[in-house]
Amino acid sequence: MELPFDLDELVRGALREDLGRSGDVTSEITVPDGAAARGRAVARAPGVVAGLSVFRRTFVLLDPSVAVTTSVFDGTAVEAGTALAEVRGPARSILGAERVALNFLQHMSGVATLTRRFVEACAGTGSVVLCTRKTLPGLRALERYAVEAAGGRLHRGGLDGGVLIKRNHLRMAGGVEEAVVRAKAGAPHTLKVEVEVESLEELKTALAAGADAILLDNADLETVFEAARLVAGRVPLEISGGVTLDRVGDIAAAGGLLISVGRLTHSAPAMDIALEVSPA
Amino acid sequence: MELPFDLDELVRGALREDLGRSGDVTSEITVPDGAAARGRAVARAPGVVAGLSVFRRTFVLLDPSVAVTTSVFDGTAVEAGTALAEVRGPARSILGAERVALNFLQHMSGVATLTRRFVEACAGTGSVVLCTRKTLPGLRALERYAVEAAGGRLHRGGLDGGVLIKRNHLRMAGGVEEAVVRAKAGAPHTLKVEVEVESLEELKTALAAGADAILLDNADLETVFEAARLVAGRVPLEISGGVTLDRVGDIAAAGGLLISVGRLTHSAPAMDIALEVSPA
Amino acid sequence: MELPFDLDELVRGALREDLGRSGDVTSEITVPDGAAARGRAVARAPGVVAGLSVFRRTFVLLDPSVAVTTSVFDGTAVEAGTALAEVRGPARSILGAERVALNFLQHMSGVATLTRRFVEACAGTGSVVLCTRKTLPGLRALERYAVEAAGGRLHRGGLDGGVLIKRNHLRMAGGVEEAVVRAKAGAPHTLKVEVEVESLEELKTALAAGADAILLDNADLETVFEAARLVAGRVPLEISGGVTLDRVGDIAAAGGLLISVGRLTHSAPAMDIALEVSPA
Amino acid sequence: MELPFDLDELVRGALREDLGRSGDVTSEITVPDGAAARGRAVARAPGVVAGLSVFRRTFVLLDPSVAVTTSVFDGTAVEAGTALAEVRGPARSILGAERVALNFLQHMSGVATLTRRFVEACAGTGSVVLCTRKTLPGLRALERYAVEAAGGRLHRGGLDGGVLIKRNHLRMAGGVEEAVVRAKAGAPHTLKVEVEVESLEELKTALAAGADAILLDNADLETVFEAARLVAGRVPLEISGGVTLDRVGDIAAAGGLLISVGRLTHSAPAMDIALEVSPA
Amino acid sequence: MELPFDLDELVRGALREDLGRSGDVTSEITVPDGAAARGRAVARAPGVVAGLSVFRRTFVLLDPSVAVTTSVFDGTAVEAGTALAEVRGPARSILGAERVALNFLQHMSGVATLTRRFVEACAGTGSVVLCTRKTLPGLRALERYAVEAAGGRLHRGGLDGGVLIKRNHLRMAGGVEEAVVRAKAGAPHTLKVEVEVESLEELKTALAAGADAILLDNADLETVFEAARLVAGRVPLEISGGVTLDRVGDIAAAGGLLISVGRLTHSAPAMDIALEVSPA
Amino acid sequence: MELPFDLDELVRGALREDLGRSGDVTSEITVPDGAAARGRAVARAPGVVAGLSVFRRTFVLLDPSVAVTTSVFDGTAVEAGTALAEVRGPARSILGAERVALNFLQHMSGVATLTRRFVEACAGTGSVVLCTRKTLPGLRALERYAVEAAGGRLHRGGLDGGVLIKRNHLRMAGGVEEAVVRAKAGAPHTLKVEVEVESLEELKTALAAGADAILLDNADLETVFEAARLVAGRVPLEISGGVTLDRVGDIAAAGGLLISVGRLTHSAPAMDIALEVSPA
Repeated sequence: MELPFDLDELVRGALREDLGRSGDVTSEITVPDGAAARGRAVARAPGVVAGLSVFRRTFVLLDPSVAVTTSVFDGTAVEAGTALAEVRGPARSILGAERVALNFLQHMSGVATLTRRFVEACAGTGSVVLCTRKTLPGLRALERYAVEAAGGRLHRGGLDGGVLIKRNHLRMAGGVEEAVVRAKAGAPHTLKVEVEVESLEELKTALAAGADAILLDNADLETVFEAARLVAGRVPLEISGGVTLDRVGDIAAAGGLLISVGRLTHSAPAMDIALEVSPA
Repeated sequence: MELPFDLDELVRGALREDLGRSGDVTSEITVPDGAAARGRAVARAPGVVAGLSVFRRTFVLLDPSVAVTTSVFDGTAVEAGTALAEVRGPARSILGAERVALNFLQHMSGVATLTRRFVEACAGTGSVVLCTRKTLPGLRALERYAVEAAGGRLHRGGLDGGVLIKRNHLRMAGGVEEAVVRAKAGAPHTLKVEVEVESLEELKTALAAGADAILLDNADLETVFEAARLVAGRVPLEISGGVTLDRVGDIAAAGGLLISVGRLTHSAPAMDIALEVSPA
Repeated sequence: MELPFDLDELVRGALREDLGRSGDVTSEITVPDGAAARGRAVARAPGVVAGLSVFRRTFVLLDPSVAVTTSVFDGTAVEAGTALAEVRGPARSILGAERVALNFLQHMSGVATLTRRFVEACAGTGSVVLCTRKTLPGLRALERYAVEAAGGRLHRGGLDGGVLIKRNHLRMAGGVEEAVVRAKAGAPHTLKVEVEVESLEELKTALAAGADAILLDNADLETVFEAARLVAGRVPLEISGGVTLDRVGDIAAAGGLLISVGRLTHSAPAMDIALEVSPA
Repeated sequence: MELPFDLDELVRGALREDLGRSGDVTSEITVPDGAAARGRAVARAPGVVAGLSVFRRTFVLLDPSVAVTTSVFDGTAVEAGTALAEVRGPARSILGAERVALNFLQHMSGVATLTRRFVEACAGTGSVVLCTRKTLPGLRALERYAVEAAGGRLHRGGLDGGVLIKRNHLRMAGGVEEAVVRAKAGAPHTLKVEVEVESLEELKTALAAGADAILLDNADLETVFEAARLVAGRVPLEISGGVTLDRVGDIAAAGGLLISVGRLTHSAPAMDIALEVSPA
Repeated sequence: MELPFDLDELVRGALREDLGRSGDVTSEITVPDGAAARGRAVARAPGVVAGLSVFRRTFVLLDPSVAVTTSVFDGTAVEAGTALAEVRGPARSILGAERVALNFLQHMSGVATLTRRFVEACAGTGSVVLCTRKTLPGLRALERYAVEAAGGRLHRGGLDGGVLIKRNHLRMAGGVEEAVVRAKAGAPHTLKVEVEVESLEELKTALAAGADAILLDNADLETVFEAARLVAGRVPLEISGGVTLDRVGDIAAAGGLLISVGRLTHSAPAMDIALEVSPA
Repeated sequence: MELPFDLDELVRGALREDLGRSGDVTSEITVPDGAAARGRAVARAPGVVAGLSVFRRTFVLLDPSVAVTTSVFDGTAVEAGTALAEVRGPARSILGAERVALNFLQHMSGVATLTRRFVEACAGTGSVVLCTRKTLPGLRALERYAVEAAGGRLHRGGLDGGVLIKRNHLRMAGGVEEAVVRAKAGAPHTLKVEVEVESLEELKTALAAGADAILLDNADLETVFEAARLVAGRVPLEISGGVTLDRVGDIAAAGGLLISVGRLTHSAPAMDIALEVSPA
């Protein structure tokens, strides 16, 4: 997924949030007008970088005369101490945009870093890791970009990007069979119909009713493997619920699964990245 | 801090982000039009709740006929299994707003939960815990609200809410003394001048130059205690840098400190909260 | 499809577009302040009504004291002379919102009326009529709502609501087989992969490559029937290109087709509806 | 009328409407990143072109590296098969903006094409054709531009661009004489006062009361001619109501009329224009 | 002129401008949560009040539980000490909105007060006072409302609300005659054509060319009277340029003039109004 | 203070306010398309210029091909007749943006001119002049910029930029001592606590309670001097209330005061500046 074409609005909003009415008072009263500076963005911990173009755009939107050169690509795993980008321009502009630029970069890289750990835990199994709709409000597009940059896959982008009948729908709709049949009849022909099941019995019902994909939620390892055997690759089989780094490799070993992990986006700790600014 | 008076814009944006153009396709094709439902928001893990009014507002903005009753107050520590709120109204509306409402509530409660742990680790020391400007873009007001609801204190809300001369400014301004003197002369009379120091030597210079507050960054425990002795309560002394839950109690023991912790806002894992929907 | 929850923004924009800076000058200088009026919206030609809630919302957003009562439901076919709604309130407010309210209602009803004609031409064939992405900029959600109200079905709501490999993609991607294989591997598991073909040869290739749906563009009637036989209901078969009211019945007779018609949304003439205002 | 200086907002909104959250999924998974393409916009039916700068702007706003060269001017009548513009740049960007760019161009050209037919039907009569406020919500400025490009004239742009006392106002105001007198006294001195009449009697009253322009609505041909004789060029005489292509020439023959036609904007069928994309 | 129907957006923007990110810190830390208050808005100088509904709306948008009762109408001349409105509700909400509400009310009342002085200076002459487009950016609608509330008249609301050929146009267009002729041919039939003249010679040319209105700029008193005699009420005659309170009465005495005064809107001093808040 | 980085939004709003839907009708019908012009912005009265970059930006946002060259800097005092800037480009674009550009420049220069007079009246006293939150809604950032350009100082930018306990808070909080103590405990450590006093008694209480700054409101000259003696430079002493040009010098003579003057922003008359346009 590419970043949205109208990213500027989001970045401007974040700059406003930090600059307020009166802007960077501290720089204005301590740094001489016209002073030139350079800043080096450096990883202070190992991780997977994502969001360098958002980082760059933040400086440029505050002041088009700032130049940002990046030295790695999004998706790259770096060691602590790696230089990620260099920023050159008026010192006040660099200092004024610093925090917002880092807030974007640290969060996106945090998501990428956590995603990569899940992806690596599944390496060689033929199973893939997906993010979910459990994203931070306003940041979904950036988080999805970071997940993909780190090798994760994307679930639907929102409620209109697929049909996914979850437990709450089933309680309202009267059960797996009825819900799937109704959905197959009513869904736009461009969307698949996926249904959540919580037992192998329900899984069989779903397949028989013509579900295009199955979501098996909160199952133990044995059930996951049995489900994979039952589905046998006919439709995508998604596993969710309590998927930790400790467990994900064992689950993935069932092969060919889609493993969706909410914490990639709602609980990824920020990657530690600093900007060191000095006179140019 | 109260929530912003114009919260609706943020919530509407989050609803749009999830509903897209075509809305909740799944509910529309599986749940009968007009079906009534009730949903119970339940904590699935212990934590400190924050954001219930945002949770409520999300449902109401999607459909004003949805009613939300909360059973705890923001800032309450709850056990796993505690019911937090009840939602009643058209099933499609409840299902359509569910994820966005939870995304807000889980993130804000995650911030509150982590904050409370830091606050409790400092209990009885006279030191307090602060959040920083290291917030997620667009969500700063909500995160700050959650920090305060959990007993944390607030640092400046943005670049125009205080003068804080950090290492990057010092490199451009020529040193602690010069920067503080310049800032005291140039700052609006409503803002204090705080300066970052990295040694006791610099701390003494800052005090002598008239700094209104001191930020001691990345210091070891011994230096923190010595700094506290030197400052002796004349001005606020803020400690930052690598403040983990393990260390915060030892630091706080120096007494009367402001301990600022970026991870409260940039790295708080979501609190696990579910909405269980059933026919009403 | 329901109307978007944040319709108000669109309606407010349309009111601004008509009222400009200075508002309804004519009413202000000819109609006494405080005069009460009633208006009757009447069909001046037969047609299928759609958009009454947008019509109502336009008056209410201009002046919350205006009351609008509707006497038919969206999707109803009416004769010329049928009263559709009654509006009561301050005369200046009714006159000020009249044109905008009608502009919405006439366009949406125009789309519904044309759609119904296509739907009726397919009655009894098991084929259905779909709208496309050829909508008027800014009005897509309203037009899709009108299509559905009239018995039409919806194609994907936008570029992220399905995978549809068209001729232009094929030219870039190297042919039907290669494009479908690549898409099946790369598509989110919630979206089907549909591909455009222009011959029965290509259709067979597409099926063999695993396409989830087929779009047959600009085919003659014979080819349509042969395509329907070949596909035999295994995947959705969509027909598009030059589908006029004259031809649609013959095409539909092949049975079980999805017939997509751009003109439902890009070329529907407005339905003639008037608002007759008089003193209340 | 020139296009509004802040057109970009409208175009960006239309791009968002089509791209949704996740953008052009199809191109991303079928077209290689970095592939270059060229697209030719070709008329597939005869018509009058309008909106080429909006067409161009759509591509450029999605991706500034796309270049668009136009080969005709707005207002040009073209044959089927005429090339209108060439687009060069990254294939994904061209495919991603294609539909929105065409939706604008086809609608505006549709309006221009229909307008030209009315204009030509009045050629040599000294009567002119005007559009009305019966425009599609959000698109008024673009439609008015297209009307003028095709040789039509503009009525007021909105409620604050002129005083036009219509039948509904007259019912509230107590008749033609009273309404005109009141309007002449109350209108800003920069606006003329036009009044709708439905008989020659009312027309005489309006002239006597000092109306600056007369709108004769729904009159038969004879009445139109008689009205033109009565007015004798002293003030503008506007004719409206049921003006079809069949009738407009006969009406226009009365000479010197302003003939306003709602269908120019509310019912113009799209002009058929395609974009043929191939590798560059 | 009525206030714009979508005033809320402007008021919300003003509240955001003052409340910033963190809101009314002072009230939050000094006034108990839940404390009730009443505030009395009192004129501290004589003047003409305008903007009470904007004043009220400011409180209500910050907190819908605040109630505002007004005791005079817009357009009323009041003495120093007159109570204008009473505000009741939560103390923090009243204090948080106070300044913004007063900023609106004081400016609008300032405009009304100055306008009234000009209007009174022309009383009995048959000449009227108009405001111009020299308004404060973003506040034009409010200022025009205030002018009218005080008995002033309105010029065109913006560039599209009338044709006014000024000196700068004349220099580009080649003179009064040519410009008027061109404008009469090209103007929409709903707009009058007004032209600026700077001599009686030009005035005669303008009349001969068919100008619908004349603007005589920067003329001495004698010329104004002579112009009035020449025009003799056939078309509106507008006087502008250096119209001070000292001179306006003498000018107005020529009778039947439109006297436009930029300073009504660009230079009106605020009316002194205070809000006295006390416990309820 | 620098101008906000996202000034364009404000300028675009002002252009829309003036151009309306249909733009500059007059120029379109009187000035030939493609005609080139130059405009000279000339001071018609002496004053202090501020806002030239906003002036420039207005032209450029309407038409990027317009070039603006300025010949003085913001903050410069100029005589009547001084050329301030030259504008070159398409005549229609220059005429279309002229009024809005001047509205910004005249207001900002008006604020700067008034500010300079107050500043000069305090020259040599060590006292400084401040603007307040009594700004025109939407224009605060521009007005504060103008104040500073003219040598004035800035008070807090809004309610979250400092703690200022005013009379209304005191009535709710129970008196100076209690309010200050509460505020010192509750205020963020980056903000000072200032309190309004109306007597020397209260002033002493405030100092004893630890107030970081004192606002003495509506005091006579003698009290001001006595207050200055009492405070003796320990904390900032702000004077407000009825500070006219006549009185400000006498007040300032007390030395070291902050003198805040609402009229700098709410009552500054526009500086008279004209744009003379002629063919290029």
